[in-house]
Amino acid sequence: MTARRYRCVCLSTMLDLKAIFGGGFARHAPQVDLLEPEEALAAPETVDFALAWKPAPDAFRPFPNLAFVSSIAAGVDNILACPSLPPGLPVLRVRDDDQARMMAGFAAWHVLWHHRGMATYIAQQRVALWRRVMEKRPAGDVRVAVLGFGHMGRVTAGVLAGLGYDVRALARRAPDPALVPDGVTIVSGPDGTARIAARADMLINLLPLTDDTRGILSGALFDRMPMGSVLIQLGRGEHLVEDDLTAALDSGRIAAASLDVFAVEPLPPEHRFWHDPRILITPHEASEPNRDALARHIAAATDRLEAGELIPTMVDRQAGY
Amino acid sequence: MTARRYRCVCLSTMLDLKAIFGGGFARHAPQVDLLEPEEALAAPETVDFALAWKPAPDAFRPFPNLAFVSSIAAGVDNILACPSLPPGLPVLRVRDDDQARMMAGFAAWHVLWHHRGMATYIAQQRVALWRRVMEKRPAGDVRVAVLGFGHMGRVTAGVLAGLGYDVRALARRAPDPALVPDGVTIVSGPDGTARIAARADMLINLLPLTDDTRGILSGALFDRMPMGSVLIQLGRGEHLVEDDLTAALDSGRIAAASLDVFAVEPLPPEHRFWHDPRILITPHEASEPNRDALARHIAAATDRLEAGELIPTMVDRQAGY
Repeated sequence: MTARRYRCVCLSTMLDLKAIFGGGFARHAPQVDLLEPEEALAAPETVDFALAWKPAPDAFRPFPNLAFVSSIAAGVDNILACPSLPPGLPVLRVRDDDQARMMAGFAAWHVLWHHRGMATYIAQQRVALWRRVMEKRPAGDVRVAVLGFGHMGRVTAGVLAGLGYDVRALARRAPDPALVPDGVTIVSGPDGTARIAARADMLINLLPLTDDTRGILSGALFDRMPMGSVLIQLGRGEHLVEDDLTAALDSGRIAAASLDVFAVEPLPPEHRFWHDPRILITPHEASEPNRDALARHIAAATDRLEAGELIPTMVDRQAGY
Repeated sequence: MTARRYRCVCLSTMLDLKAIFGGGFARHAPQVDLLEPEEALAAPETVDFALAWKPAPDAFRPFPNLAFVSSIAAGVDNILACPSLPPGLPVLRVRDDDQARMMAGFAAWHVLWHHRGMATYIAQQRVALWRRVMEKRPAGDVRVAVLGFGHMGRVTAGVLAGLGYDVRALARRAPDPALVPDGVTIVSGPDGTARIAARADMLINLLPLTDDTRGILSGALFDRMPMGSVLIQLGRGEHLVEDDLTAALDSGRIAAASLDVFAVEPLPPEHRFWHDPRILITPHEASEPNRDALARHIAAATDRLEAGELIPTMVDRQAGY
């Protein structure tokens, strides 16, 4: 029997997806031919599906027979925003254990950075100063709120609870209790965001970007947080109202922030955040998709397609994730 | 019935134990009177036990009727080294879940600091530079060795395995498999140290200080490690041969080190480590005993004493921990 071959077009204005992921596909999805748009345009009706990341506005138009489009990561906001995305086309995201653990480690690093005052030690070393922090605040007294309880939120909340932090996670709907890590309290319901913020000494944003979550990190939210709290922003730049963060830092409501994502990336060199000593900036580095995981995900999707089954990583386009 | 009261003398050349721990004892061990040495010397034969941390050489001499001496933390090396410690006196250490999680978080922070190159981002922010690290090394490709598989080593190894690192832990004896966290491989046996070092991209020292482990972080060990590896030293200063570390850094065998403990503390301002850009220094801050945990541990010890039972946190003075 000859295995069916698949033709996949790569649609991105930002990344050379074929160059980045070709090796992983050769190892884990050899039945898939990755095509640059120019190659695919020679016979657009033969293209089976698409891989996309920040596709051009008209990227989908030439391809009439796509069975699905897959993101290269957990986020799909950049695909759903594409005007040429056909209304009924299934959109897949990647559920990647490695990426979730990578995100959890990055989030935990920032929690510890702020909780343990690591910047102070770095500054003290510069002047050869040995000064200890006596009576450290126990982790159990630090209330950490994780906004988002998808795969990444769940792993992140579990790691932080394992380190002894007092962890709450915001979920749109109450999840299956079997999926809630030990020591994590779920907050959900219509006023969930307000309730979790009120008890957040540190707030970690891992939400997907949707019409409901755009601008959620605003003055209204910050005003509900305890004085002197910390923001760890690992979601999407569009979640944050930048002027509101500056105001919250100036008022002392927010004492410090770690920002990994920005409305405009790269963050322009003249942006005031760069030189704000209360802000720690990383250049959208919290996590990245594992190359092999993406290829395995696509191979599984083609198997399902062949069998005529639903693909479990399909997003709810109405909900936006 | 009148509960028996206990008299406990505080023996330390370094810390005011009564001031630091008095509140915790009032809450969790109200049957214990903490005494300064001067108070205790008024009636030394009535003192029931001692709390010690770096006791003076002759600290134990005046007290003929001690039932035990307890450390304030997991380490007892500073007590076992005291010349006036009576040979048969039971020595207790504290087994403290909070402290173990605190240590695990500190260790994980340093692993992530080195693995994710966080120093680079801090330097880039100073010059408003947005530069990403593409093709990050997955956590699963980073081999982390944890020297020591006591309570702290076990929690630390478990947290790091949960973050996806490839974790081995060195144990003197093979432990009960039920105590080994998922994803952690135990290395033991006479050549265990050499074998674990040979596969250690990062080596975390959490060993107790004993005659067997003094100077274990030496050139002989570093020479077995992969080129460009990382040392995270959270044990005792006397574990490290300082000149051998400088040589290993100069040869590139060790690329970077995090040091929290030193042979002489405070680390003298003129010490070369302060200004070595390959070394990150913290002033013995990795973990500290939880005040309430110490008082609860002493309360449990007095209960056992009353019942004439063995105290499970008694150290093996022959082994040194």
